[in-house]
Amino acid sequence: MADTLAALRSLMASHSPPLHALIVPSEDYHQSEYVSERDKRRQFVSGFTGSAGLALVTMKEALLWTDGRYFLQAAQELSDQWKLMRIGEDPSVDVWMADNLQKDAAVGIDPWCVSVDTAQQWEHAFAKKQQKLVQTCTNLVDEVWKNRPPFQINPVNIHPLEFSGRTVADKLKNLREKLKEVEAHAIIITTLDEVAWLYNVRGTDVSYCPVVHAFAIITASSAFFYVDERKLSSEVKSYLEENGIDVRDYGAVSSDVALLASKQLTPSSSANETLCDGPRDMEIGSGTSIAEEKTHNLIWIDPGSCCFALYSKLNPDQVLPKRSPVPLAKAIKNPVELDGLKKAHVRDGAAVVQYLVWLDKQMQEIYGASGYFMEAESANKKKHSGTMKLTEVSASDKLEGFRASKEHFRGLSFPTISSVGPNAAVIHYVPDAKTCSELDADSIYLFDSGAQYLDGTTDITRTVHFGKPSAHEKACYTAVLKGHIALGNARFPNGTNGHALDILARIPLWKDGLDYRHGTGHGIGSYLNVHEGPHLISFRPHARNVPLQASMTVTDEPGYYEDGSFGIRLENVLIVKEAATKFNFGDKGYLSFEHITWAPYQRKLIDLSLLTPEEIDWVNAYHSKCKAVLASYLDESETAWLKKATEPISV
Amino acid sequence: MADTLAALRSLMASHSPPLHALIVPSEDYHQSEYVSERDKRRQFVSGFTGSAGLALVTMKEALLWTDGRYFLQAAQELSDQWKLMRIGEDPSVDVWMADNLQKDAAVGIDPWCVSVDTAQQWEHAFAKKQQKLVQTCTNLVDEVWKNRPPFQINPVNIHPLEFSGRTVADKLKNLREKLKEVEAHAIIITTLDEVAWLYNVRGTDVSYCPVVHAFAIITASSAFFYVDERKLSSEVKSYLEENGIDVRDYGAVSSDVALLASKQLTPSSSANETLCDGPRDMEIGSGTSIAEEKTHNLIWIDPGSCCFALYSKLNPDQVLPKRSPVPLAKAIKNPVELDGLKKAHVRDGAAVVQYLVWLDKQMQEIYGASGYFMEAESANKKKHSGTMKLTEVSASDKLEGFRASKEHFRGLSFPTISSVGPNAAVIHYVPDAKTCSELDADSIYLFDSGAQYLDGTTDITRTVHFGKPSAHEKACYTAVLKGHIALGNARFPNGTNGHALDILARIPLWKDGLDYRHGTGHGIGSYLNVHEGPHLISFRPHARNVPLQASMTVTDEPGYYEDGSFGIRLENVLIVKEAATKFNFGDKGYLSFEHITWAPYQRKLIDLSLLTPEEIDWVNAYHSKCKAVLASYLDESETAWLKKATEPISV
Repeated sequence: MADTLAALRSLMASHSPPLHALIVPSEDYHQSEYVSERDKRRQFVSGFTGSAGLALVTMKEALLWTDGRYFLQAAQELSDQWKLMRIGEDPSVDVWMADNLQKDAAVGIDPWCVSVDTAQQWEHAFAKKQQKLVQTCTNLVDEVWKNRPPFQINPVNIHPLEFSGRTVADKLKNLREKLKEVEAHAIIITTLDEVAWLYNVRGTDVSYCPVVHAFAIITASSAFFYVDERKLSSEVKSYLEENGIDVRDYGAVSSDVALLASKQLTPSSSANETLCDGPRDMEIGSGTSIAEEKTHNLIWIDPGSCCFALYSKLNPDQVLPKRSPVPLAKAIKNPVELDGLKKAHVRDGAAVVQYLVWLDKQMQEIYGASGYFMEAESANKKKHSGTMKLTEVSASDKLEGFRASKEHFRGLSFPTISSVGPNAAVIHYVPDAKTCSELDADSIYLFDSGAQYLDGTTDITRTVHFGKPSAHEKACYTAVLKGHIALGNARFPNGTNGHALDILARIPLWKDGLDYRHGTGHGIGSYLNVHEGPHLISFRPHARNVPLQASMTVTDEPGYYEDGSFGIRLENVLIVKEAATKFNFGDKGYLSFEHITWAPYQRKLIDLSLLTPEEIDWVNAYHSKCKAVLASYLDESETAWLKKATEPISV
Repeated sequence: MADTLAALRSLMASHSPPLHALIVPSEDYHQSEYVSERDKRRQFVSGFTGSAGLALVTMKEALLWTDGRYFLQAAQELSDQWKLMRIGEDPSVDVWMADNLQKDAAVGIDPWCVSVDTAQQWEHAFAKKQQKLVQTCTNLVDEVWKNRPPFQINPVNIHPLEFSGRTVADKLKNLREKLKEVEAHAIIITTLDEVAWLYNVRGTDVSYCPVVHAFAIITASSAFFYVDERKLSSEVKSYLEENGIDVRDYGAVSSDVALLASKQLTPSSSANETLCDGPRDMEIGSGTSIAEEKTHNLIWIDPGSCCFALYSKLNPDQVLPKRSPVPLAKAIKNPVELDGLKKAHVRDGAAVVQYLVWLDKQMQEIYGASGYFMEAESANKKKHSGTMKLTEVSASDKLEGFRASKEHFRGLSFPTISSVGPNAAVIHYVPDAKTCSELDADSIYLFDSGAQYLDGTTDITRTVHFGKPSAHEKACYTAVLKGHIALGNARFPNGTNGHALDILARIPLWKDGLDYRHGTGHGIGSYLNVHEGPHLISFRPHARNVPLQASMTVTDEPGYYEDGSFGIRLENVLIVKEAATKFNFGDKGYLSFEHITWAPYQRKLIDLSLLTPEEIDWVNAYHSKCKAVLASYLDESETAWLKKATEPISV
């Protein structure tokens, strides 16, 4: 690590102009939440493995900004060459740079790894002291990263109509209508899941997210797909051709954007781009000839996701900086996707129940636990009797196994959170096989996990106890459950933002002075990213949040976390649907939610005296449906277990 | 009216420069919600009597913008010379002006009657077509208003410490600390209730609001009170002098602001201001000598309330445009004010109960109604038997009488909404003695009313039925009641904005596809304005909304309105207080509400099958307390009535 910093500083010093500081963000060229191994530059430089953070290297200092989820982990992982900057407590990165770097300082950034919005925010903050943001021609980290994981040629797969539910032609038609509405000549799509959705393709370039490293440019008559051609089978090539999609080299996007700017986007751009011009993973390939329409001049980019590098190819006057319309179109699932999501969630729920049945047995056999149903101190507190040891990781591997046995399984949708006792209080805890905790009959166990199936992406959290939970744990679990039910049962008029609904999940916790420091729900993809917008159920207002609409997916996941002690979260995926209300005041139409996640809540953790009759009815109805929908996936003993787990409750 | 427009147009034509349009807003020099009779310029010009609206007179057209509450009323009141512009449906006033007035058009405005924010917004909208906002030196409407009500010399009263609870010295000390924090030299206070609160004075210059027409300027060492000296008794003068408050003529504020700008605010500014310089109601008086502190340069004004005229006296560079800190300080009631408010609400509740008892008797005697308790069609549907007739106005006069008999009564806090059947669906209905409806044993009756008492301002709404309400009316009343209870019972962490809480009052209505088109709660003054900020419980996000804090007052008033049929609203005043929660997650401290309004909900209108056991318990506890706190104010028969009205309910 010391070598890395020294090598980086040497490159910074010899850069023209010399750089006083270098920013290394977490994001790849597509502003992805999850990135490929070779894109984990910030992790390589700093040693910090968390998903969110920003490194800043100056000639004398090295700083890492991250948020509250990662304070503890970052403090452990960073060497003493690094200073941890706590977001929300310490000055923000732009403020720190403006205050601590010299007047006229040059701050380097790879313009492919930063969004237009962020770069412009920094530029604005720097202006006070005549500091300058300098776009580096190469990524300096890549230059010093000797064992950087190689580029992989992962195949691109067609996502067939039986799962995607909408043709590319139809999606492009809609997008082109939007272009016309805003009088734009073209739109540049840089976000991986937007490209994958638009062209009905999937890949394996990024763990957990079935996307392809690619860009897209769409005009009134053309559609370009910037991707490494070696990833395309002849079948895929034919498919793309049939759909009027022009395949161009991944690295050609930069020069093509420049050509687009002058309405000269020609077929085979000469392959002589400098390193400054194209993403550097790929040599520059050749394309085909395009006759460009001449009606409108504006080029639409989403400044929240488009990288600064591509933006910089355009004249600011010709840019239409506006949120991409694709995320909203993608968020409103079509009937085929809805059907697939429901089916995927049934298989996924079956895997979760199978896991619970298996875990219940293990906990009793290995740890002498009273089990899922009985409520007693463990009879036998022995820990790891050799090979019988059960850890957070080995347990979750079993869960993955149950999922992998299901039809259409394609992998996990995010790193499984499998957490015992105090670890469950770490909201984004990801166990490490070497250091993780052993399971414990006397502690709460929280698992938050999901998978990618061809017909849908899943995400579910359950919290269980195999021994005797405390009255306090039960009270907290029940408050979380009440919030989970209240949100799921809400009806609301069209136009309501998830921001307004968030409080419904918190009110039962607030009653006792409890709360949780995360949002309550996010959209989920259809065999795509597990987190997708543009809607959000969150207590914080977000400029980009939009009202909920029928056929959106959204999670319902309140929690409660007691540092050093335990954590509770319950999460189901919901579908927004039209509500059959008795009246329709204001003619707006009313919406409600449909749960599509199926796994029981643990009776033992519910303090029934805290539930209303309506809440008890709801749990019973949900459990009854759980039993019915999962039946065909379970064997006899699993069916018997689920029958018991879903027995009606009453006060 | 035709004469008025012609006269105005003649003045516009002879103005230098000639005006192509003249804007006539509803507001007075202080941006008040309620204005004095002589300030109702927009009403005089247009004939429209609603509280909110804006008139625009061009050489050929006359337009009036108003909001949804007033579409019907405005359409009735406007002559055919006027065009009604519906806010939310038609183009907004700035868009209309920019689109319809000629290039380079001059648009006149009295800069005393418009806020800085609004004037700047118009200027911005006009810039596209090089149109210009022209500040008129005189108010052209005043010049053509022949029978304009005369200026009244209403006495200024001291609001004693036994009611105000805080000395002027203490309030000024706090305000001066704020000045220091933002490094401001002075603050100009233009809002009437801010001045009244700061100096502990009250008056009768505006109906319903016990304020004085005045401005204030506060510096680190001085406090100026711009008011017509004839309103001050020698006792008040002494009081002001003792509190270090410099009395200056109301009209001198303009020249004094100019002097303040150059730090030359001298004692007796020469009395030779032009009409452009000072409010034109008053001749310019003389003041006393002040030595100004020289530390800071900025002059703090609130651009949302400060008039454009005063702002224009300052160099933009020396202006600190920032919300005034007074509304928040005023909103957090001190213990004396809280005690006073509670007592005022008990007396007010007693008046409401006495009114209900009286009304119940009248409805049975005059209209053969089954009465407040019994549920049957009226036996005798006769209407107005001569002198026995009961109208919306005559009924509410009786209510005012019950209030007027109470200690510390000083008048109503807003025009009473007394509305029968379909009129109750008009949210801001104010009955007119000549045209109002007669009471009706078979219709819902909604009354929303309040009073000014020396120790507090009140605001309460109840909805009753003296015959046989329909099942639908009951279901709606019950949904409104459920929302009213849910909001009032909320607990929430410090930092929570009323915007987030609003949904709690709507969820029970949304369940059936019902809703209401108004906010759910507003702050209320302590013998001051019935509507006060800066907090608000509203579904719409407001840039100026602030989190709720302990010791604020806020109303809880959901409703439901069925056009042409009936309206329901229930309103109590709540005090925000610290909640004794079991835990205190995040160390933020949790808050809850205390109801301070006392009057029963009508048992007959509640569909008990729709209430949860908790809600029934809450109603019973509230009713029980109602009976206890009002006891000493009621006679024997009233006590018996209230006992019956508050009998415990159960399913």
